[in-house]
Amino acid sequence: MTFEKIPYKIYLSEQEMPKAWYNVRADMKTKPAPLLNPGTGEAMGFEDLRPVFCNELICQELDNDTREIPIPAEIRDFYKMYRPSPLVRAYCLEEKLQTPAKIYYKFEGNNTSGSHKLNSAIAQAYYAKQQGLKGVTTETGAGQWGTALSMACAYLGLDCKVYMVKVSYEQKPFRREVMRTYGAAVTPSPSMETEIGKKILQEHPGTTGSLGCAISEAVEAAATNPGYRYVLGSVLNQVLLHQSIIGLETKAALDKYGVVPDIIIGCAGGGSNLGGLISPFMGEKLRGEKDYRIIAVEPASCPSFTRGRFAYDFCDTGMVCPLAKMYTLGSGFIPSANHAGGLRYHGMSPVLSQLYHDGYMEAVSVEQTKVFEAAEAFARVEGILPAPESSHAIRVAIDEAIKCKETGEEKTIVFGLTGTGYFDMVAYEKFHNGEMTDYIPTDAELQQSFDKLPQVPGLD
Amino acid sequence: MTFEKIPYKIYLSEQEMPKAWYNVRADMKTKPAPLLNPGTGEAMGFEDLRPVFCNELICQELDNDTREIPIPAEIRDFYKMYRPSPLVRAYCLEEKLQTPAKIYYKFEGNNTSGSHKLNSAIAQAYYAKQQGLKGVTTETGAGQWGTALSMACAYLGLDCKVYMVKVSYEQKPFRREVMRTYGAAVTPSPSMETEIGKKILQEHPGTTGSLGCAISEAVEAAATNPGYRYVLGSVLNQVLLHQSIIGLETKAALDKYGVVPDIIIGCAGGGSNLGGLISPFMGEKLRGEKDYRIIAVEPASCPSFTRGRFAYDFCDTGMVCPLAKMYTLGSGFIPSANHAGGLRYHGMSPVLSQLYHDGYMEAVSVEQTKVFEAAEAFARVEGILPAPESSHAIRVAIDEAIKCKETGEEKTIVFGLTGTGYFDMVAYEKFHNGEMTDYIPTDAELQQSFDKLPQVPGLD
Repeated sequence: MTFEKIPYKIYLSEQEMPKAWYNVRADMKTKPAPLLNPGTGEAMGFEDLRPVFCNELICQELDNDTREIPIPAEIRDFYKMYRPSPLVRAYCLEEKLQTPAKIYYKFEGNNTSGSHKLNSAIAQAYYAKQQGLKGVTTETGAGQWGTALSMACAYLGLDCKVYMVKVSYEQKPFRREVMRTYGAAVTPSPSMETEIGKKILQEHPGTTGSLGCAISEAVEAAATNPGYRYVLGSVLNQVLLHQSIIGLETKAALDKYGVVPDIIIGCAGGGSNLGGLISPFMGEKLRGEKDYRIIAVEPASCPSFTRGRFAYDFCDTGMVCPLAKMYTLGSGFIPSANHAGGLRYHGMSPVLSQLYHDGYMEAVSVEQTKVFEAAEAFARVEGILPAPESSHAIRVAIDEAIKCKETGEEKTIVFGLTGTGYFDMVAYEKFHNGEMTDYIPTDAELQQSFDKLPQVPGLD
Repeated sequence: MTFEKIPYKIYLSEQEMPKAWYNVRADMKTKPAPLLNPGTGEAMGFEDLRPVFCNELICQELDNDTREIPIPAEIRDFYKMYRPSPLVRAYCLEEKLQTPAKIYYKFEGNNTSGSHKLNSAIAQAYYAKQQGLKGVTTETGAGQWGTALSMACAYLGLDCKVYMVKVSYEQKPFRREVMRTYGAAVTPSPSMETEIGKKILQEHPGTTGSLGCAISEAVEAAATNPGYRYVLGSVLNQVLLHQSIIGLETKAALDKYGVVPDIIIGCAGGGSNLGGLISPFMGEKLRGEKDYRIIAVEPASCPSFTRGRFAYDFCDTGMVCPLAKMYTLGSGFIPSANHAGGLRYHGMSPVLSQLYHDGYMEAVSVEQTKVFEAAEAFARVEGILPAPESSHAIRVAIDEAIKCKETGEEKTIVFGLTGTGYFDMVAYEKFHNGEMTDYIPTDAELQQSFDKLPQVPGLD
């Protein structure tokens, strides 16, 4: 094992940290399609979105042209508490695999939310605060986004109201308590606090809730409580913009040592991490300056890119949100109980969907037992216990490194390690006990879901 | 808030990392008293300890003279995976407290074991491997030490057998699964695998175990299985030696910016973190080069320094281990169910005990609700969710910073943030729900325990 001059971990200094987010849409020839009003089929503008979202965030959502958007000083100060995140050279994994490939990972798990979600949470909370709002509402399933938002709101002194899917609220009390530590009000959803919650509880008295229902409650709470807005942790253009900090830091760290990646790999649920990680590299690719293989990894149980349709669909299962044009399995698709909760989403970021559609990136799907095999092998040599979501990227990084071993190619592989798995030990336990199952939806199942894709007035 | 030139986080480069551990015993005028054989009252030498401990570690245990002990290259490589740990300037906490004090903390929680325990785990596993052993045995209660040792053994390809207190094994399945992820064999203690385990189970069929019992099983397993030795995560001189990496890095980071601390604060259970953090500073103090206030913080429910006796006592409640001279509440003392499991130990490192006895450091005890108040306040402004153990140091750092506010003094305070609280959310939940209780042992209770301190042949 030669250690060359590249350290195990490359940290940027505070001076070297990015001062602006990068908006990849500015370099896209075909822009992502706009959000549509499901009733009228018309593109939603600033005024349509204003009752639910913060003003500045709507501007960012709609801005397809500005390449660089300055990061406000207060957000940069917050970033300094847990960023720059390390870019790690996986020397031990390389040695274990006996591969000539050089593997790097950008580790976003060294903060209490346990993932990259904090990068956008602080930005969204900041703009809400700037607007003079009292607080924000959101939903959370597995709890990483809710935790991140609670942390950001605690820092800024903003109210934070989290609707947590009831089954998670009950089965993941630790996540709930982390949010409470940061002062968030956590409500099991469906609740009696909202009209939609009451309605659902009346119709389904014993329900344990769903993400779609929690979204509906959070949106209603934002729209009906003066001084509140709704925020979301993935899918939206603004989220990808904030998450570009991941890719910008990664690129700066690689540039510092003259390293050019051949392959960039990220897991993809709604697309927040992948979109952020690849953004500056994708920018170079779009401008024709460089070429990279960019690979999105998704669970075989929820394969939006690899088996979905590129179509207008609801962002939520509750069908209260706008329509987005994206790769989707249909908003009625219920993913099987894959343990990577952050990847159990029927759709995909419209930006990434357009890029994939236009051939700028690849996608592969992997089964969860293979993912946990990779996770465990990685943990044992690299120390870090990865989140199930992140482990999808590890799986494909290892597969690519093994291919390099076979061909003798010294490729440079970079992947995103989005977070830690401390709150996912139930999944690890199932894996250790041989009780983990893989599920792949049949073509018939998917077709059934596609058949229910919304008819958009004025389209088709 | 002036940000001066000191960054939020000071990281050393890999080149700046310490290449040798510092043995504070070399600078102590009065050396720590030797371990004694409880039967004969004689000091235990190399041959006495050989059946249970690794050879090189015994040498380190007995070496009171060598000031610097080189860190083997393989251990330094492992350290590079998660070290140097950041020294953080707590700008946000300072602002929140409106104090003129400058607060720094050395954060040891950014690794999967969640604490500083890994620093000694890798060293002990390394020497076991060097000796050609098959594996090591240990006990774990809360699970941080067991996790750290599992990680170190996985990295080196060494067997790791952990006896986990049965009640923790059942109530902390997540910790158990983390250890299993790293390939450790985790056995609920008492078990049918050892003679002492069988005996205990026969006498107390329904017992949920204790740390004392788990130690006894681990020691027996090491002594009776060829190729195995027993390792321990705190109290011992060797552990403090390995943990000196914390203090050495802290001092190097402060020196880089010309910062000289006035007060150094650490939580104290067995003393592994505190001993490591303070070591180079204590060295300067012992050599008369500098002066620092050094404060050990312990739970009011388990106050070894502040209310214990300085006497020879058993290191374990099972009374199978050697006698150590230390501040102790008596090996039969059962601490109340304080949530800082890592601080629920009746004794204290003999090195720290001697230094405290000789007046080189202070000690204070704090109640757990006050500790959790500090923990929550800290989490909300600094982001990190601290372990209950670490939060003892936070409490006193905040108290000292508030004193500075009152007096207007610009003191520099450094404290050790030993780890994260992700596996301690049950405690946080009790705190949020107002169900946390404080308990302080009465003088009569302590006296009863002191009365049972062992009579050492040849002493008294």
